[in-house]
Amino acid sequence: MLVDFDKAGGLLPAIAQDAKTGDVLMLAWMNREAFEETVRTRRAVYFSRSRNKLWRKGEESGNVQEVQEICLDCDTDTILLKVNQVGGAACHEGYKSCFFRKLEADELTVIAERVFDPKQVYKK
Amino acid sequence: MLVDFDKAGGLLPAIAQDAKTGDVLMLAWMNREAFEETVRTRRAVYFSRSRNKLWRKGEESGNVQEVQEICLDCDTDTILLKVNQVGGAACHEGYKSCFFRKLEADELTVIAERVFDPKQVYKK
Repeated sequence: MLVDFDKAGGLLPAIAQDAKTGDVLMLAWMNREAFEETVRTRRAVYFSRSRNKLWRKGEESGNVQEVQEICLDCDTDTILLKVNQVGGAACHEGYKSCFFRKLEADELTVIAERVFDPKQVYKK
Repeated sequence: MLVDFDKAGGLLPAIAQDAKTGDVLMLAWMNREAFEETVRTRRAVYFSRSRNKLWRKGEESGNVQEVQEICLDCDTDTILLKVNQVGGAACHEGYKSCFFRKLEADELTVIAERVFDPKQVYKK
């Protein structure tokens, strides 16, 4: 197998990066099943640790990630996806990237603008 | 505390990204001590899971990472460092990025060129 899923209890970190701009969008987790479905469908599928099941990114919001490229690191235990983020925002809080806050003088400062209003997208 | 180290056994994933080019260089792990030393010294310090101790990146090779920016994700359980990679290569195999291989037709293909020869840098 090309990816070392035997490490770390079968869950590996997967980074999603905007294929065009290089922005790091998010980090989530993959088990073997999520990885294989991602490779097969060319859409990002993660494993949700909180819900303990496969998480087909965008299944609720429609903001799927179209996978352009899949890279592995030197230890084959971290996955890097270069993606086209449909809808322009990867974060459930409505930002393009989940990394929308910066640490500055011991405080977190928001450094991005919302792409969508989470209340409109996730009708709960 | 700004970062949620209580999750996942105290070890959080930390992504290092080239501050200039946006290339994702590597993913490593941080415990609270590694994170605090990184914030204080502005040099990337990780926690090595294999050696079970702090890993001051570059302590052996000289290829330290000067931290330009520290971002947190929406769940405050993943760290993104924007760094200046001294020596031009983050990977112990001599590549700029640890993600030097791409998955293509069920095979890993090297998509980068070596910046240095690991045998010269890590004299063992």
